[in-house]
Amino acid sequence: MAALKRLLIGRPLKSNELGEQKLNKKKALAILSSDALSSVAYGPEQILLVLITISGAALWYSIPIGIGVLVLLTALVLSYRQIIYAYPQGGGAYVVSKENLGILPGLIAGGSLLVDYILTVAVSVSAGTDALTSAFPALHEHKVAIAVTFVILLTILNLRGVTESATVLAYPVYLFVFALLLLIVVGIYNILTGHVSPELHAPIGTPVAGISLFLLLRAFASGSSALTGVEAISNAIPNFKDPAPKNAARTLMAMGILLAVLFSGIVFLAYYLGITPTAQETVVSQIANQTFGRNIMYFFIQGTTALILILAANTGYSAFPLLAVNLAKDKFIPRMFTARGDRLGYSNGILILGLLSILLIIAFHGQTEHLIPLYAVGVFIPFTLSQTGMMLKWIREKPAGWVPKLVINTIGALISLTVFLMFFMTKFMQVWPFFIFLPFMVYLFYSIKKHYDAVGEQLRITTCEPSVEIKGNVVIVPVSGITHVVEHSLNYAKSLSADQIIAVYIPFEREELSRFDEKWKKWRPDVRLVTLHSPYRSIIHPLSKFIDTIQRKATESQYQVTVVIPQFIPKKSWQNLLHNQTSFMLRAYLLYRKDVIVTTVPYHLKK
Amino acid sequence: MAALKRLLIGRPLKSNELGEQKLNKKKALAILSSDALSSVAYGPEQILLVLITISGAALWYSIPIGIGVLVLLTALVLSYRQIIYAYPQGGGAYVVSKENLGILPGLIAGGSLLVDYILTVAVSVSAGTDALTSAFPALHEHKVAIAVTFVILLTILNLRGVTESATVLAYPVYLFVFALLLLIVVGIYNILTGHVSPELHAPIGTPVAGISLFLLLRAFASGSSALTGVEAISNAIPNFKDPAPKNAARTLMAMGILLAVLFSGIVFLAYYLGITPTAQETVVSQIANQTFGRNIMYFFIQGTTALILILAANTGYSAFPLLAVNLAKDKFIPRMFTARGDRLGYSNGILILGLLSILLIIAFHGQTEHLIPLYAVGVFIPFTLSQTGMMLKWIREKPAGWVPKLVINTIGALISLTVFLMFFMTKFMQVWPFFIFLPFMVYLFYSIKKHYDAVGEQLRITTCEPSVEIKGNVVIVPVSGITHVVEHSLNYAKSLSADQIIAVYIPFEREELSRFDEKWKKWRPDVRLVTLHSPYRSIIHPLSKFIDTIQRKATESQYQVTVVIPQFIPKKSWQNLLHNQTSFMLRAYLLYRKDVIVTTVPYHLKK
Repeated sequence: MAALKRLLIGRPLKSNELGEQKLNKKKALAILSSDALSSVAYGPEQILLVLITISGAALWYSIPIGIGVLVLLTALVLSYRQIIYAYPQGGGAYVVSKENLGILPGLIAGGSLLVDYILTVAVSVSAGTDALTSAFPALHEHKVAIAVTFVILLTILNLRGVTESATVLAYPVYLFVFALLLLIVVGIYNILTGHVSPELHAPIGTPVAGISLFLLLRAFASGSSALTGVEAISNAIPNFKDPAPKNAARTLMAMGILLAVLFSGIVFLAYYLGITPTAQETVVSQIANQTFGRNIMYFFIQGTTALILILAANTGYSAFPLLAVNLAKDKFIPRMFTARGDRLGYSNGILILGLLSILLIIAFHGQTEHLIPLYAVGVFIPFTLSQTGMMLKWIREKPAGWVPKLVINTIGALISLTVFLMFFMTKFMQVWPFFIFLPFMVYLFYSIKKHYDAVGEQLRITTCEPSVEIKGNVVIVPVSGITHVVEHSLNYAKSLSADQIIAVYIPFEREELSRFDEKWKKWRPDVRLVTLHSPYRSIIHPLSKFIDTIQRKATESQYQVTVVIPQFIPKKSWQNLLHNQTSFMLRAYLLYRKDVIVTTVPYHLKK
Repeated sequence: MAALKRLLIGRPLKSNELGEQKLNKKKALAILSSDALSSVAYGPEQILLVLITISGAALWYSIPIGIGVLVLLTALVLSYRQIIYAYPQGGGAYVVSKENLGILPGLIAGGSLLVDYILTVAVSVSAGTDALTSAFPALHEHKVAIAVTFVILLTILNLRGVTESATVLAYPVYLFVFALLLLIVVGIYNILTGHVSPELHAPIGTPVAGISLFLLLRAFASGSSALTGVEAISNAIPNFKDPAPKNAARTLMAMGILLAVLFSGIVFLAYYLGITPTAQETVVSQIANQTFGRNIMYFFIQGTTALILILAANTGYSAFPLLAVNLAKDKFIPRMFTARGDRLGYSNGILILGLLSILLIIAFHGQTEHLIPLYAVGVFIPFTLSQTGMMLKWIREKPAGWVPKLVINTIGALISLTVFLMFFMTKFMQVWPFFIFLPFMVYLFYSIKKHYDAVGEQLRITTCEPSVEIKGNVVIVPVSGITHVVEHSLNYAKSLSADQIIAVYIPFEREELSRFDEKWKKWRPDVRLVTLHSPYRSIIHPLSKFIDTIQRKATESQYQVTVVIPQFIPKKSWQNLLHNQTSFMLRAYLLYRKDVIVTTVPYHLKK
């Protein structure tokens, strides 16, 4: 087991090796922007899919809508840049909302993002697997197994540590960017050199029958799904090399520019080449086909696209554990999320994320497309909350040059809110589960916090409340016969110089009562034996009643009751099935139901 | 939980109420012969399915083959009758083979039957569910869920106890017998009164081109699958009212006669009416259709058939736990199978049987037809072994009138062996997994026996080996801070008058080392504190090394090491997720890897 773990995730790292696990800008861009960049592969298509429901002529609207998305992108990048400098310790929407708007908005933002990162992993991996099985249809029936395997691989990669996964993942991301840039450059070159007929598209401004504001808003909202993942960098600042905020801000700008170029390039080419979205072929595939034909360049573009869709999941792996740490530090989720694993990553967060995504993939049989709207709505809630939080911050603190900052965040907040409302109104039938799940999560956060606070209070040592002194000990030893194990337990009890030792024997047959009593008197006359007949063949019930009686007396004189239970430790682990059922049940019952101390005496079997 | 259990399985019974749980002959027939009787619904069809591969004219061979099956049935019933009287304590093939042929043949018989009863449950319930979903096609997609529900219901019914399930199950079994008898009587009446054309079938003896001995043997083997379940009564003798052997023998005879009448009736009618087996309609359904038309009688017959197929599973529930008890008493399977539950049934056997059948049903998506040959081959192995065992018994013991007894068992053994060999040769491609699985099971039986024997030897107190005296105690208390829990643990350790108490603190940060040391010295200067820095953020490893050092010294002077671990007991069980991960891991590690005593101090949270 230990050797397998070493092989999969590598040797453990010391806490002071943390610095070596930090990211430089190039790796950070690869690891944190794969989600955002990959959305170029489907974002423009989402816009066209809405427009085509009217007519082919309506497709020209993709140009103004695309410009709208670019404005939103600019606003978001600029706002998040301000968040990075204002909250250099990371935490993104959760921290910003909590500190400026209050705990509830913070938890809403945090909860939305947690769910969102899980959806990111499930949706991206499923989409990538789809791309793969489209290329190799024989694999289609193993879709779920393939997707689950990818999630497991990503989980192992992330357990190995941030830099190692960045090294592996950097190539495909840069290859994808290179492939799409090449496609856009060659495409525009073809247009400029007149190799493309200008008749393929309706001119901008062509009047279209049946177009409505609702439809245009819906198309805009759909296109905005390309902006999910923009917040990831602001959550992951602690993973950057120093000076972390500056490096993070530069990485964010680089990502914004890349995203803008790729997105507008694809939207423009799709419009100019008159691409109509179909179920059989993606828009990017159609553009590549028209630009290069079905040659090696085409397959290069398709291949890197499939790859980046799977790797987009990695953004979830980078951001989820860090967000979980922030929530766990504030005691809203279990403390175990703050523990660093052998390789200094927050392994519990990584494992839970992997596990939940696998469950989602299995539950939806790998068909996670209808989760995409949920996922988009889950992104724009924290976007809106964090921008609003920043607005309040500027208004309250009024630092030097706060007015332009306020303007940027206000524009960001308004556009995010608009997109959120559009999703809510135009896709309510798909997104309603989010609004059931989110309040439940927030309730859970509060319950966990309340519990931890209550525990902390009960543990705190205050001078006023002295601890109860233990004046003596009563040891109860349930015995199953006259054996070495019983002998060892009794010897141990004696060595504790307990004030009273009581052996308890519980036969199912009445005849056994006196028979065992006699045997015992010959063997250990020095230890008091109590025999209890159990007509219902239960060990726990008669023992529990007996313990109650003893405990009542013991409490009166401030005595502590200890139950000594032997446990067989076999040489091979399968042999555990052959033993310990009774001792296991007994221990669980006594610990949870009674206020007695349970001592487990191991008996290591040698054969 | 407890209330739910009461509701489902009823109030617990005292051990001396066992007599009231015994079966009278009428109930025993219902509960133990549903498997055998239900095979009438598919046995004759199996013969016709093999013959039709040649031609319609070959169907007349079903009459001589049917007679062959009747001879086999007679031999089996008479032989098992002798087994019942010879082994009135039950156990059937396992006990008979073990006592007369040796342990290995006994385990082969026992293992085959264990597997077989699991297959019985899975196959019968799936077949019954098929019959149900044929009637209501809308239910088809929920097939697996329905089958699993039936298994759960049968499991609950059997956990309630033998007589209660017999009471519920007696009606459908007798209704099925009544329905089939009525069908046979009316069918023959129609023939005798000349309502059926005598032209429908080829006369017996018609020469058929292409018929071969191999094919006829194959048809015979397939027809013999109707005889599975005959051994159930000999396994379940302890469930009968006194005089148990006599009642069991009479029940067996009654079952044999019923089975013979129904089987020959169906074979004859199928032949006379010229029924050709088809994939769309069962043979019994075709006979009923021709005899009654599609009226209420037809649906009555179909309904009771579906019901008895599901109830056939109950034979498995009656026989499996009793066989498991016999194997567990001989230490070949875990001891827990000998424990009687609240209602005096062997609940562990019942639960394991239910669980494994559910797993089979889910694994095969409810399509368990291809398990049928496995199931038949698994029956004829113990048939052959037990008859051979009886032969040896008669030859060795030579009681009064042993020669006719020997003849009966010899015939039984020979026919069973023949049927087994036919299955083995004609259906090898379907039955080979059985011959991989069986040796594995037998190996497991031997390993378990070896382990239990070794444990027994290690526990036995012999005068020559005195137990090691404990001369003193060292108590180690891992502490996580200065809290009430730690205080309580230290007070407890003190009260044990241990010779040495060592508190151990393991910080992940080097700076914590001296800081905590100072705090401790102010708080509990009387208790020695050891601080261990853990650069790899593991609690277990440094603690384990420390315990090793202490233990080495302790062993030299015969001191015993005890580790005191506090455990939070929250008010609500979900809160367990928020605590105890470390203490749980620590306890498991220490118990399994070290020879230290682990004391768990519960800390019951009040809020």
